[in-house]
Amino acid sequence: MATLRVGYSTNIAPDLLADFPKGIELVALPRDLDHDVEIEVWIPDPYPTRNTRIVPHLRGVKLVLSLMAGTEWIPAAMGPHVTICNARGAHNISTAEWTLAAILTMLKHFPLFLDIQRSGDWKRRRPEASAEYVRITGDTRALYPPVMLEELTGKTVLLVGYGSIGKEIERMLEPFQVQLIRVARTARENSKVHAVSELDALLPKAQIIVLILPDTAESRGLIDARRLSLMQQGALLVNSARGPIVNTDALVQALQSGKIRAALDVTDPEPLPPEHPLWKCPNLLITPHVGGSSPEFARRSLKVAADELRRYMAGEPLRNVVQAAV
Amino acid sequence: MATLRVGYSTNIAPDLLADFPKGIELVALPRDLDHDVEIEVWIPDPYPTRNTRIVPHLRGVKLVLSLMAGTEWIPAAMGPHVTICNARGAHNISTAEWTLAAILTMLKHFPLFLDIQRSGDWKRRRPEASAEYVRITGDTRALYPPVMLEELTGKTVLLVGYGSIGKEIERMLEPFQVQLIRVARTARENSKVHAVSELDALLPKAQIIVLILPDTAESRGLIDARRLSLMQQGALLVNSARGPIVNTDALVQALQSGKIRAALDVTDPEPLPPEHPLWKCPNLLITPHVGGSSPEFARRSLKVAADELRRYMAGEPLRNVVQAAV
Repeated sequence: MATLRVGYSTNIAPDLLADFPKGIELVALPRDLDHDVEIEVWIPDPYPTRNTRIVPHLRGVKLVLSLMAGTEWIPAAMGPHVTICNARGAHNISTAEWTLAAILTMLKHFPLFLDIQRSGDWKRRRPEASAEYVRITGDTRALYPPVMLEELTGKTVLLVGYGSIGKEIERMLEPFQVQLIRVARTARENSKVHAVSELDALLPKAQIIVLILPDTAESRGLIDARRLSLMQQGALLVNSARGPIVNTDALVQALQSGKIRAALDVTDPEPLPPEHPLWKCPNLLITPHVGGSSPEFARRSLKVAADELRRYMAGEPLRNVVQAAV
Repeated sequence: MATLRVGYSTNIAPDLLADFPKGIELVALPRDLDHDVEIEVWIPDPYPTRNTRIVPHLRGVKLVLSLMAGTEWIPAAMGPHVTICNARGAHNISTAEWTLAAILTMLKHFPLFLDIQRSGDWKRRRPEASAEYVRITGDTRALYPPVMLEELTGKTVLLVGYGSIGKEIERMLEPFQVQLIRVARTARENSKVHAVSELDALLPKAQIIVLILPDTAESRGLIDARRLSLMQQGALLVNSARGPIVNTDALVQALQSGKIRAALDVTDPEPLPPEHPLWKCPNLLITPHVGGSSPEFARRSLKVAADELRRYMAGEPLRNVVQAAV
């Protein structure tokens, strides 16, 4: 039997591949690969664009092991005759932590306080922070002392997507005693998960809506102008998933009107061009698709890939198939 | 028996006092009180300075029920012959949430990403965010892809102060599986709490140090230049307590040198004057003493005061005495 040839990016430090099964031949693929290579298994570079010059030179690939959770660019690049697996589980902690960080930063109005910090004017806090609280939340009770921060505790959170990252977000939300409403593609009776067809009825119930579902034909444009209008005044939309799930033009309008606020790790388009109106929208945090970044990223995702490779070599069923070869 | 007279700020909405015990006479005290009033129980305005013109007119006060956790201004204003209680427990959730928000915001480098958002330049993320990660943490492993965010999960957190707010912070840290080291004034064998005398040996072990202890003669200046120098490169100091616990000049130096970073809800002095060097320090988040702010603040703290008042009237021991009358 020929040795299994596994291609990987030269950018990945070889010591991270130490846990890969014995009996394979590792083939380092530089970003500027200029000749054809015969490999059976391919581990693409985590940055999709760094694979552009590699793809045309690949011959004989049967299995693609992505180091990412989202793999939407791979089927078009590789066609239907390869099996594609993602690194399910490897990004749970980092992405869930980003989601918690984004929610708390927005509820504590840290972007405003960073502005105040830059201005060096402590006394702006009272008039501006309490006015922001009233303006965003619509809570006009004459509270004393004036309210400057919100709480996560007790809020209703709508989790749209209930895969492994969604469950990790749920785990990190536990101490805050939120009312959690879970939505997935189809309802699951035993774990209290609603079907996405019920979304319209659920959106008005939540103060926080978290998107953590894959980018598919069904999920594209899921959050459109109509669904944004169903949200509560001051609702916080958190996109930890993929940009195209939200209609960007409708989002810009909803933000500019002051109806909702948002925290986005992903946008559509991406990268967001310099003059795009989203950059200047109020009540918005944008981080440029960094939510999965972590010092543990490479180690965790290559461990998932190594496990999958072992199964492939043993002829066992693969665990994280997102496209089965036809 | 004469009716118990209880003075409170006119700023507090009377409907929040609906749970107060029967048989008392509520005496509303305006901020510009201009005549003497005889009251036995006083509930000061939460903003200390709003009590300045009230204090000299108070006669017969035996019990002060503060709505705050920190009461350091009251003994000097009222003298030793009054009992002072704080609103223990009322600020646990808000202050612990601020602490979690501050930790996550710093570990996810949101201040840098807000700068990038303002500049509208998505592509700044890769060189700047990964350089910031290396510079702050001192982690120079050649990781690929370059690391842009840190994780809270698995870090070592040193909690200096282990009262009711400290325990709430511990509860909110639970999903992140941190190594928690607890420090209080004295060691408590059964709950694994170290004495503050062990602090020097513990500081080098932690990546995150949270201050949540009262402002007392012993705690003032606890974190000085020497103790800052014992911290790890890139350690995050979070002050959720009171400004004077940290020596400000030493902190400015430690921040400017890039040795540590900090998130402060409190400073010394306070308010921080416009030209103070702390405003411009790198690797720093300042929020202007807002950590306890919450839409639930008034309701929760007046509930604690109402409970204490009921005990006082029934002759039962008070729960939250911070100064016993002599």
